[in-house]
Amino acid sequence: MEAHSVQILVQIFVMFAAAKVLGVVGERYKVPSVISEIVAGMVIGPHLLGLVQVQEWTLALAELGAIVLLFDVGLDQKLTDLMKVGWTALLVATLGVVVPFFLGYGLLVLMDHSQTESIFMGAAMVATSVGITARVLQELGVLKTVVATVILGAAVIDDILSMIVLAVVSGLSEGVNYVQIGSVTGLAIGFSLFIVLVGQRVMRRVTPHVQRFARGEPYFPLAMVICLGLAVAANKIGIAAIIGAFLAGLVFSEEELTAGLKTKIHALYEFLVPFFFVAMGMQMDLGVLRHREILLLAGLITLLAILGKFVGCGVGAYRMGWRPAVQIGVGMVPRGEVGIIVASIGLGLHTISDEIYAVVIIMVLVTTLIAPPVLKVLFRERGRAPSPAPAADLPSQPSPPGELL
Amino acid sequence: MEAHSVQILVQIFVMFAAAKVLGVVGERYKVPSVISEIVAGMVIGPHLLGLVQVQEWTLALAELGAIVLLFDVGLDQKLTDLMKVGWTALLVATLGVVVPFFLGYGLLVLMDHSQTESIFMGAAMVATSVGITARVLQELGVLKTVVATVILGAAVIDDILSMIVLAVVSGLSEGVNYVQIGSVTGLAIGFSLFIVLVGQRVMRRVTPHVQRFARGEPYFPLAMVICLGLAVAANKIGIAAIIGAFLAGLVFSEEELTAGLKTKIHALYEFLVPFFFVAMGMQMDLGVLRHREILLLAGLITLLAILGKFVGCGVGAYRMGWRPAVQIGVGMVPRGEVGIIVASIGLGLHTISDEIYAVVIIMVLVTTLIAPPVLKVLFRERGRAPSPAPAADLPSQPSPPGELL
Repeated sequence: MEAHSVQILVQIFVMFAAAKVLGVVGERYKVPSVISEIVAGMVIGPHLLGLVQVQEWTLALAELGAIVLLFDVGLDQKLTDLMKVGWTALLVATLGVVVPFFLGYGLLVLMDHSQTESIFMGAAMVATSVGITARVLQELGVLKTVVATVILGAAVIDDILSMIVLAVVSGLSEGVNYVQIGSVTGLAIGFSLFIVLVGQRVMRRVTPHVQRFARGEPYFPLAMVICLGLAVAANKIGIAAIIGAFLAGLVFSEEELTAGLKTKIHALYEFLVPFFFVAMGMQMDLGVLRHREILLLAGLITLLAILGKFVGCGVGAYRMGWRPAVQIGVGMVPRGEVGIIVASIGLGLHTISDEIYAVVIIMVLVTTLIAPPVLKVLFRERGRAPSPAPAADLPSQPSPPGELL
Repeated sequence: MEAHSVQILVQIFVMFAAAKVLGVVGERYKVPSVISEIVAGMVIGPHLLGLVQVQEWTLALAELGAIVLLFDVGLDQKLTDLMKVGWTALLVATLGVVVPFFLGYGLLVLMDHSQTESIFMGAAMVATSVGITARVLQELGVLKTVVATVILGAAVIDDILSMIVLAVVSGLSEGVNYVQIGSVTGLAIGFSLFIVLVGQRVMRRVTPHVQRFARGEPYFPLAMVICLGLAVAANKIGIAAIIGAFLAGLVFSEEELTAGLKTKIHALYEFLVPFFFVAMGMQMDLGVLRHREILLLAGLITLLAILGKFVGCGVGAYRMGWRPAVQIGVGMVPRGEVGIIVASIGLGLHTISDEIYAVVIIMVLVTTLIAPPVLKVLFRERGRAPSPAPAADLPSQPSPPGELL
């Protein structure tokens, strides 16, 4: 084996071990793994200990992690379930996407950042990380209440809206013009609809042949080929590769083939996804926080991110009464993987600066840490939540494998 | 995401898709996946279509694949079962290692190749690929006969002997002197004994704590950390990284924790191991076969590889009667992953030439393709094999995940 590939092996070990060790420590204090892993990346990365450098292959490994992550997110969305969630969830999700986007975008435009950078900032503030909220709700035993149903349903729609936003912003390489935004939006929506509608039809036809063809569990290799293939295809038409992975997940989610498939995807998830978050942490230059204006901006953006979701989603749910509206507003606050993905794409395209990247990471860390304790207080104040709803209406949202989020 | 990491993504897709497509086609004609994947690598690699180049990250990904492969091999060996296999299996294994080694080594020395290159050639001819034989025996329904027991038992011992040979040859970077061979052998054996003896004790102590500590299935992350860590450690003391992975597998194989762990390792296996074989195929320059002397050498080495195992193992089993001895001799003929690993290490260290690398690949391909049909004829001639033995004495040797070997 060549000297250099040994070097890579050592760094892979350091990244994985740091993620898992900090993950175990964090779990004792109920810190979500996303956070432990990002912090692990900051610690071992070039800006602190310097054990691992950001290199071509690091980004490729992180990319593989992001692809598996988004494929898994896609697998968890059942389009048919989504139809049942109702208008409240749709309203909550839509306002929860629109309000934070314009708050983030607006602030950066006011501060004379470029149009593209401002759009990326807005986009990074959009997606709720439902895994964290779902786990808290589960621990409190309120997963089957109306409030939880609305939160989870809205988070699913929110994911899909975020993907559309992401597809659009990832097509904006340099500068912004409205014709380009229009054409990229059209392309992204057209591509998504095509894959989902045609893909599910094709899968239904192909499934019996696959079972006849191969022995063992044949869907995992097929799923990975399609997942990587659609990631490449998405990238070729100019949108983010992970959108393709997400769509591949959607295509496989409707079939009755997810049981065996999910176990295997989760194993890949446990091994590969940490590399994504560690690599994201490695890219964060803590040094920029020494500048007071950056720290101020981070505080401001984090505040807007919290208020944006809280107000947007709360208003969307106002007809349910003020207490459920507050609970829903808080439940939608945590941002996670998608915000970081948006920021990392911006960083890769050199359309956002190191400073803005650091601001996004801080926003994600704080919103993720702040929501769970507040949620616990809100739900405990009056014991169980108002009115229990039947579980059948719940979109399936199991907490991710390996307790990662 | 950066332009280059997208390029990597495209190549990852091409490698994986080629492996799986050729794998499905090959399976129709009962070609083992190892072979389909090596051929896929030859086709897409730089020497034919040129779709994918051999780069630093390709080798790193292949290395990860090899590590998972060897960890899985280690997991399948139960040291306590090995004790039951008996002296015949030990004799079969030992002669089956010694005879081919000296035949390969001797031929190259006679042809004026360097000492190191000759030793690598011999080492590459040593390890039986039990997966292929086990699958054929299973299909013939003779897996529980004495002959099968001896074959499988011998293949297990053979694996361990090969690891020792590999540990020694991987410590020989340039030139050979007997002091160095002695010290590397001592180091390799000492390291292995230490890991296996101490590791299993530590695992027994740590297991209860791990279960209390983490939720879900906690062994998979722990196993991967230890696997990568021992791979790095092995490399640091100057032996092949995969030896560390193999030892990590041994450490986890004795515990009652392999059930959940294996499912997850197998998923990683299905995704990562194809990259190893594809990358190995990519590195084979078919062009060297245009030279008549290389083709002749490949034929000669292949012949010696077949004869060496057949005679060595047959003689080892001669007391069982001539028919079982022949069956055992043929059953041990297929070479596989370990031979290729030895060759790839030699190639990486620049101690073997492209020509010798090509010769090893051909030897592996031919021995793997030739044994199954012959075995079928030998076992069918007289219906079932002579005397059935109880299954309890069988070392567990399930066919690998995803029908890969």
